[in-house]
Amino acid sequence: MSTPEPIIKSKQTEKDVNGISTQVVCTEFSNYIFIVITQFGKIGTLISVSPDSRANDITTPTFATKVLLGKDEPLTHVCAKNLASFVSQEAGNRPVLLGLALKDSSIDAIKSIKEIIRSCQVW
Amino acid sequence: MSTPEPIIKSKQTEKDVNGISTQVVCTEFSNYIFIVITQFGKIGTLISVSPDSRANDITTPTFATKVLLGKDEPLTHVCAKNLASFVSQEAGNRPVLLGLALKDSSIDAIKSIKEIIRSCQVW
Repeated sequence: MSTPEPIIKSKQTEKDVNGISTQVVCTEFSNYIFIVITQFGKIGTLISVSPDSRANDITTPTFATKVLLGKDEPLTHVCAKNLASFVSQEAGNRPVLLGLALKDSSIDAIKSIKEIIRSCQVW
Repeated sequence: MSTPEPIIKSKQTEKDVNGISTQVVCTEFSNYIFIVITQFGKIGTLISVSPDSRANDITTPTFATKVLLGKDEPLTHVCAKNLASFVSQEAGNRPVLLGLALKDSSIDAIKSIKEIIRSCQVW
């Protein structure tokens, strides 16, 4: 039933981040990059991270974050921007749809998770 | 870098529905089933389909649909309910997160797409 070469590119991996099992799934759509980062097996808070077209200064791109599903907390926006901005930039400024279920949101953990996202590059 | 047996179960396929190439991706999370059905390569309109806990009559379950991203049109809610209700019921009443990008929303097409979803069962 499944196609030998899938049309929708998707990669996933599982790594330890500060001793916590972390699963990352990245899927490419023409208008979005979809990334789930979960330390609970849940899809978690769903956030859209979009290049902000209102920004004037083209040398420093800014991003608009919006919580679509789940708890809307300031830290969520910070983590989402931090994790997804580089993906959006590398993917031709496509917005990123991010599912985030983290036990550990430390700067150190976020840095490690960015490396895991990079290892699942589909864009 | 990738695990031999992925922890997050995901299946995808590509089929013709009334002559239109249709891609379906189903991914299982502990708290959601995530399904994208696309005839454009886009993630499309994002809808949550949840068993409605307010319903009194337990013999006929009802579902609440909410558009999280994209155009909020009545037909979208109808299609989403039609496509995702059986998945939610089969998956222990888990809600379904649905990405829907259809060129053809005819009853006939919806019926065929339900069969494709069934062939990508991850729940």
